Amino acid sequence: MTDASRLPGLIALDWGTSAQRAWLLDRVGRIIDVRRPDQGLLATTEGIDVRDGHARELAYEAAFWSACGDWVTAHPDVPVIACGMVGSAQGWADAGYRTVPADLRFGADALVRVRHRRGVVHLVPGLRVPSAADVPGDVIRGEEAQIIGALEALDEPTGVVTLVLPGTHSKWVRVDNGKVLSFTTAMSGELFGLLTADGILARTAVEPRRDDEAFARGLVAGRSRGLTAELFGARPLVLDGLLDPASVHDYVSGVLIAHEVAHQLPTTAPGRVLLCGTEDLCRRYERALAAHGVVPTVLTEDVAARGLWRIACSTGLHHPEAQEQQWQ
Amino acid sequence: MTDASRLPGLIALDWGTSAQRAWLLDRVGRIIDVRRPDQGLLATTEGIDVRDGHARELAYEAAFWSACGDWVTAHPDVPVIACGMVGSAQGWADAGYRTVPADLRFGADALVRVRHRRGVVHLVPGLRVPSAADVPGDVIRGEEAQIIGALEALDEPTGVVTLVLPGTHSKWVRVDNGKVLSFTTAMSGELFGLLTADGILARTAVEPRRDDEAFARGLVAGRSRGLTAELFGARPLVLDGLLDPASVHDYVSGVLIAHEVAHQLPTTAPGRVLLCGTEDLCRRYERALAAHGVVPTVLTEDVAARGLWRIACSTGLHHPEAQEQQWQ
Repeated sequence: MTDASRLPGLIALDWGTSAQRAWLLDRVGRIIDVRRPDQGLLATTEGIDVRDGHARELAYEAAFWSACGDWVTAHPDVPVIACGMVGSAQGWADAGYRTVPADLRFGADALVRVRHRRGVVHLVPGLRVPSAADVPGDVIRGEEAQIIGALEALDEPTGVVTLVLPGTHSKWVRVDNGKVLSFTTAMSGELFGLLTADGILARTAVEPRRDDEAFARGLVAGRSRGLTAELFGARPLVLDGLLDPASVHDYVSGVLIAHEVAHQLPTTAPGRVLLCGTEDLCRRYERALAAHGVVPTVLTEDVAARGLWRIACSTGLHHPEAQEQQWQ
Repeated sequence: MTDASRLPGLIALDWGTSAQRAWLLDRVGRIIDVRRPDQGLLATTEGIDVRDGHARELAYEAAFWSACGDWVTAHPDVPVIACGMVGSAQGWADAGYRTVPADLRFGADALVRVRHRRGVVHLVPGLRVPSAADVPGDVIRGEEAQIIGALEALDEPTGVVTLVLPGTHSKWVRVDNGKVLSFTTAMSGELFGLLTADGILARTAVEPRRDDEAFARGLVAGRSRGLTAELFGARPLVLDGLLDPASVHDYVSGVLIAHEVAHQLPTTAPGRVLLCGTEDLCRRYERALAAHGVVPTVLTEDVAARGLWRIACSTGLHHPEAQEQQWQ
């Protein structure tokens, strides 16, 4: 039985706009193999008319086969699950959205099936906060698997959790007893990219060098005179010789993250705060949260595979006990 | 004497980073002629090493001559004054900065002289708020002439005035009885340019169409959940069919301007609020100020020439009475 548990049990993909990851998991959800084929939605659909459904299907099937066709061939009975933009209107097929408040234990009918030459891929739907007349809603695709995976990592996943997923478009998710109540996207990461690639701050900066103290100074500034003024502040600091041009990036990062945290951190009852992302971003957000007296639980591992495994189990796509019993 | 007052009395230039304007003024400061030669600092110094002082002098003299050499030749005794980046370290010569609080009546020694083949150009120094250790200061160059010109346009220029100069880098200037106490730059205009040129919102938008209602909705949103979240909000509104993709630009403009005004408008004793800029920007800022119960005085004319005239008079560069007497 111990050996049997190491046999492949699930092929899982997180297939986003610009990146793709594929995992081969064993029969109890441990990672056997991982790949980063770098064939996101944009690369997959390059050169084809995305409105042409048939052309799109062919392109996605080819990209899927190139990512993990050998796994599918070697293990034809192992189910396949995928989350992310692959399930969007420009994806392989539209897996739709589930509307919040949404339970994180998906029902068996939640997944959308698309056929490939040797079987089926099960697409995970996104989550949606509907817009009111003047309060914009929000959508996520792929992060739902990260949310499930991150909560799994908690010893005690009950009660209110504020989950922070920092990135190009950071997500702040409010969860109560395994149910997503709401979420908000803050585009701080994208603004950082735009500001440091072009414009006056890009011209003020030189080749960046890590400067934790400049980041801390940005953190303080980002809570004061408004974002559009504090961002510009990096320039006079450089002109006055009080900020190294090589530290402008870290200063700007501090200003943006402080602004985001000050507005997104719930002012009442944030519950447990769970921070999940790359090591560098987690370190930055941890310091910004500390300024509000919040000590988050930090997860720097990639939790999407764990989430996809849980979805596969709860939707009946994978029956760990049943399959293991076959091998006893 | 009436005819004499229409004779040329001053050649004035506002010579910024990307644009240049030249005015021929008469002996009482009225505009006889205006040109927009579009030879800003960047175009003037293109292809030369700005660290090479001699090459820079030659480039500026050539650009100056091309802009208004005919005026100088025809009126060799008329003084010449220039403000803006032409007086920066990368300009024709460094005219330095005056530190706030600064009186707007310049002394005779405030101007820096540079020679050209037929005479002298008088450069106006900028204004500077020095940086403290963690409170960035600020600098302006050229706007000091606009400040003086805008205050001149007031019937009653005494007391506290909050002067707003909206643009790529908007300036909020606090003036008390003709003295600049402080100022702050907000880079809302630059952020608008970056966000609508590239990134997720640029991809969400289509060819913009003026939509005052979308702007008003952005104004409301820009005061709520933080700038980085409210900006992203345009996208779910479009996805949910609640915002026309052609109106994304106006929505984003509303979010940015509301954020700027909410943070820059003094919460106590703003005094009289004077708004000075293009007609379109003034209309937008007027609506954002109205949300705070503020009705500004609006100036959509170009006030830089008026300010340069006043500087020329207060520094003794131009003696209206003396010159007019010569012609009596």
